[in-house]
Amino acid sequence: MSTPSAETEDRLDVCDPVAVARALIACPSVTPEEGGALDLLERVLDRLGFSVTRLTFSEPGTAEVDNLVASLGTGAPHLLFAGHTDVVPPGDSRTWRHPPFSGEIDDGFLYGRGAVDMKGGVAAFVAAIARLKAADRLPVGTITLVITGDEEGPGINGTQKALAWCADKGFAFDGALVGEPTCVARLGDMAKIGRRGSLSGTIRVQGRQGHAAYPHRALNPMAAVAPIARTLAEDPLDEGTSDFQPSNLELVSIDTDNSAFNVIPGACEIRFNVRFNTIWSSDTLKAELLRRIEDATPDGISTQVEWERPSEPFVTESGALADAMSEAISQVVGARPELSTSGGTSDARYVRAYCPVVEFGLVGDTMHQIDERVPLADLEGLTEIYGRFTSLVLAGGGGAAGT
Amino acid sequence: MSTPSAETEDRLDVCDPVAVARALIACPSVTPEEGGALDLLERVLDRLGFSVTRLTFSEPGTAEVDNLVASLGTGAPHLLFAGHTDVVPPGDSRTWRHPPFSGEIDDGFLYGRGAVDMKGGVAAFVAAIARLKAADRLPVGTITLVITGDEEGPGINGTQKALAWCADKGFAFDGALVGEPTCVARLGDMAKIGRRGSLSGTIRVQGRQGHAAYPHRALNPMAAVAPIARTLAEDPLDEGTSDFQPSNLELVSIDTDNSAFNVIPGACEIRFNVRFNTIWSSDTLKAELLRRIEDATPDGISTQVEWERPSEPFVTESGALADAMSEAISQVVGARPELSTSGGTSDARYVRAYCPVVEFGLVGDTMHQIDERVPLADLEGLTEIYGRFTSLVLAGGGGAAGT
Repeated sequence: MSTPSAETEDRLDVCDPVAVARALIACPSVTPEEGGALDLLERVLDRLGFSVTRLTFSEPGTAEVDNLVASLGTGAPHLLFAGHTDVVPPGDSRTWRHPPFSGEIDDGFLYGRGAVDMKGGVAAFVAAIARLKAADRLPVGTITLVITGDEEGPGINGTQKALAWCADKGFAFDGALVGEPTCVARLGDMAKIGRRGSLSGTIRVQGRQGHAAYPHRALNPMAAVAPIARTLAEDPLDEGTSDFQPSNLELVSIDTDNSAFNVIPGACEIRFNVRFNTIWSSDTLKAELLRRIEDATPDGISTQVEWERPSEPFVTESGALADAMSEAISQVVGARPELSTSGGTSDARYVRAYCPVVEFGLVGDTMHQIDERVPLADLEGLTEIYGRFTSLVLAGGGGAAGT
Repeated sequence: MSTPSAETEDRLDVCDPVAVARALIACPSVTPEEGGALDLLERVLDRLGFSVTRLTFSEPGTAEVDNLVASLGTGAPHLLFAGHTDVVPPGDSRTWRHPPFSGEIDDGFLYGRGAVDMKGGVAAFVAAIARLKAADRLPVGTITLVITGDEEGPGINGTQKALAWCADKGFAFDGALVGEPTCVARLGDMAKIGRRGSLSGTIRVQGRQGHAAYPHRALNPMAAVAPIARTLAEDPLDEGTSDFQPSNLELVSIDTDNSAFNVIPGACEIRFNVRFNTIWSSDTLKAELLRRIEDATPDGISTQVEWERPSEPFVTESGALADAMSEAISQVVGARPELSTSGGTSDARYVRAYCPVVEFGLVGDTMHQIDERVPLADLEGLTEIYGRFTSLVLAGGGGAAGT
């Protein structure tokens, strides 16, 4: 299946999330390639009456990335839907049951890279708006989509810059929905009202090189590895909060670059990543980790830590937005979701600087994997949930405003 | 200074260890290059009346290496001198005080790669025999030199094969002297009567890869690193013996090959080297280390150890050989040496399969370093010691025979 032609698109039923998702999956939009996905989305949103702006951002040392901002309606309340059409690479295409950009339907599932993360989510939101419009039930206020092509990449030329552009143009969002996969086992079981922070660092451990037969003339940096690994990975950071699970540190690598068995190495590097809750800021966490590393390092060996740019943890301030999502989900699947802050980071960390944000999307179990796929029934259910959520939020006067 | 011409060699005073060492240093014999060093030695030994055989050994996957076997005299007792003319690379030649293959004399020192390890030792032995011959004091029996060009390399096409060739030809050694550097601070302070064994291994630690934000779905192999490192490097193996220092294990590398901070790696490798005494054989030591690794590995993670070919520890069986060396040293420097088993492995591990062996040579403090150098006085002293040792051993009827 190739990228749909304009003629095919004319017959595309934009009220059908499966049809829209298939058309998006057919666009090979591996970050940073636009792959035709934003072009397709622009034409579809244009047909629905959106005013569409394309924004290309670039920065030295990064790939140029295409983004899309589209608005429908006027005035408050103003709901933002944030998502992306870029996807991670498919891996070995030959190992897929169906080609990763074919959008095949098989046994009740739509297959393809992005089916879950998150062309399926974008398609469901577009179909939800199309259905409200077709039923002449578009609520008052404004609906804006910010769709980036840089969520799976470095994230530098995407949502962050698009939101800054929106702020510059005077957009005043009352609440936001991020359509990333959030469900664990079945559609509706989890929505996210915040995210843990993320902090990564590289510890350079410096000893003194020497011959393995003469250890007294050397200072093996490996002697620091066991105590540092123990204090970082085994001693708990905290016990969590009512909103957050306990903070967690993972050692992601130890490297030495010494190929000789008879040489005691001069140095090694330990790299780690922490997912942390609101008990810490990245600054207080850095201080705690530095203290632990220093206490654990044997005399004579020196350590130095180089930090990556952190993400701070957050929990959304608006209960109304989470309430609207819980109500919409309950209406469609018959049960309220867990409101969680678990998992990795997402573009919600950028959105939350502008307005309250809730995240809800498909079941994430196949995302980034071979044979990524979504049940057709879940695309239909998500479309219904997004439509009801949009109506509830706009009828209620937006997120924070409705608190 | 280039390789000496045949004409220069005719004027070479073979009774002068400094002259012979300079001529050898001028040959750039970095393993596996012969570099002219064995050719020079062949001509010198030929002039002294030795019967010289050159032996080229090769094996698939290794460089072809040149070796030399030379014998003088007939019948028992039979003394073997084992040494090498190959050298380690000079490193950055521009950082040497004098070019590494120039053999410059400066302030009482002879500079050059191999000055200590061990062209200086070979030169001293050759000069010692030349002096005995010049004084018409060559003792009865046979003196054989086995000089390899593969001591600093893999050691596969060197001493081991040359000794097998000698055995095949019916050579029956009564005792052997290995001329490696053994002294610590001053000439004569240490001789070696054995060596620790060496055992190296690579532990492959296997977990399950995953996303750093979802550690419960992964199994971080790093969790095994701290306990394995602790049990291997911190818990003593033994307390040593009357002949040997305690066995010692050094972790020489830990490597992961994971560049992403948000990925929990699937596996890592821990590499180690043990220098062990006669309390252990390589087999009992392997069993002990496997037990420790298994006990330290957390549930779910698996480990597998790949062993390098070990060297077994040994202590020479002949007290007479060590006594002769102690006596010779005492006569020249006025004090007896410490008889030690410390340090790394040497070709003595091959020699000891054929006869008792003692090791004695120069002070090793500059070996393998920039500005490797030897005091001229030490070359003179070593020549005297080697001459007296040879006379004592041959007069005493050899090593084992003299016990």
